[in-house]
Amino acid sequence: MTDISLNEARQVLQAAHEAALEAQTKMNIAVVDAGGNLKAFTRMDGAWLGSIDIAVKKARTARYFDMPTGDLGTLSQPGEPLFNIEVSNGGLITFPGGIPLLKDGVVVGAIGVSGSTVEDDHSVASAGAAAL
Amino acid sequence: MTDISLNEARQVLQAAHEAALEAQTKMNIAVVDAGGNLKAFTRMDGAWLGSIDIAVKKARTARYFDMPTGDLGTLSQPGEPLFNIEVSNGGLITFPGGIPLLKDGVVVGAIGVSGSTVEDDHSVASAGAAAL
Amino acid sequence: MTDISLNEARQVLQAAHEAALEAQTKMNIAVVDAGGNLKAFTRMDGAWLGSIDIAVKKARTARYFDMPTGDLGTLSQPGEPLFNIEVSNGGLITFPGGIPLLKDGVVVGAIGVSGSTVEDDHSVASAGAAAL
Amino acid sequence: MTDISLNEARQVLQAAHEAALEAQTKMNIAVVDAGGNLKAFTRMDGAWLGSIDIAVKKARTARYFDMPTGDLGTLSQPGEPLFNIEVSNGGLITFPGGIPLLKDGVVVGAIGVSGSTVEDDHSVASAGAAAL
Repeated sequence: MTDISLNEARQVLQAAHEAALEAQTKMNIAVVDAGGNLKAFTRMDGAWLGSIDIAVKKARTARYFDMPTGDLGTLSQPGEPLFNIEVSNGGLITFPGGIPLLKDGVVVGAIGVSGSTVEDDHSVASAGAAAL
Repeated sequence: MTDISLNEARQVLQAAHEAALEAQTKMNIAVVDAGGNLKAFTRMDGAWLGSIDIAVKKARTARYFDMPTGDLGTLSQPGEPLFNIEVSNGGLITFPGGIPLLKDGVVVGAIGVSGSTVEDDHSVASAGAAAL
Repeated sequence: MTDISLNEARQVLQAAHEAALEAQTKMNIAVVDAGGNLKAFTRMDGAWLGSIDIAVKKARTARYFDMPTGDLGTLSQPGEPLFNIEVSNGGLITFPGGIPLLKDGVVVGAIGVSGSTVEDDHSVASAGAAAL
Repeated sequence: MTDISLNEARQVLQAAHEAALEAQTKMNIAVVDAGGNLKAFTRMDGAWLGSIDIAVKKARTARYFDMPTGDLGTLSQPGEPLFNIEVSNGGLITFPGGIPLLKDGVVVGAIGVSGSTVEDDHSVASAGAAAL
């Protein structure tokens, strides 16, 4: 299994951080490795405390199913195929803001962002993912 | 209490594994015994990490209520009798992929499968259950 | 990160199982991958139910610190450097029975065995580890 | 409440990281704020997976009691006043490697380091704390 390096995780964090500043948001940003374990994390000054856990869970969720968290969320609504999947794995977050990190087409980890609207969260996470 | 033996659990796992290969899916497959405790588990290479816990929870859910997980899921929707039952028992999974295992008409355990669509998951679980 | 394959995990399980039969013990045997996530598990008929979680935690502990669990246990005694490390990581098991799995000198996972004396557990885990 | 800023947390992380490199160790390094909540985290390539949680718990423990974790550890031994305090707060770590972070004599957070001997962990944490 190919894994993300700390240098790569930092590039991802840095790109996400810059995107958050540009969008004038205060974000929690987490990066997990290929095994779903925390690799790097940063919380901007004034960012929501409740978003620490959400950022980490978004990153883990994105890696656990190798898809953006928002995609999983459309499937977990009432009446949809994966209703209440969120109770598994110690808690999943299935709204946007978590995105797999790919290197040469292989998933090597994931980024999770939380602290603003889910649109902002997803946009900042995308900026981070694009840095790899 | 009549219980599943390890040999039987292995037959169930093997049949499910073969069905998963035939369907070209990558599955996590769990078998629990009559007490709802893990008996055997296998994760195919490249299968989702988040499906480890879901496969185990599907198997446990199917044994806890002696019905396919999908049947429970129709009852746990908003407005239905068992709304949000998923938060009990340390987390239940109520979408398809968990099926009780019967021997001479008695439930001796359950199988849980996770890694693809719920239709595939259910189909692979059924193949496993049929092996007993 | 090099990871263990399902075929390799099965060889490890099989070798441990045979060693357990030879020692006339009833074991729970778990194999985790390089990320510490469950890969394969088997519980022999009549093995302790309480050893399911212990076998999994032993495997995870061995991978989390890349050393046999018993080595960690000598360091976690009262007055020793790592006293009560067991409360971390959702629960660690630091008595013998967990051993890292190496391939070409690289840790690719770990095996955890529980169901008898810690000497037996360690011996069976060693037989499993030697199969890789 | 005077709190640590992200810039300050980064200085602490950076100083600890450099000390870890100099000591040829592979560390998990966590910084929490005045509220005991995670502010920044980094895991060096190849560092123990089990040390992620321990680094965070060391930082939190140091801030929860405003003392180095090792000091608390002498009080939590069998027969001592705080025996088994480790089971509180979701798990405390009371061996060396966690140190409060002070600014103008006020505790504004804490650093936790895990990945080597407790002497190395404490030394690297001290280098981080000195950067503030």
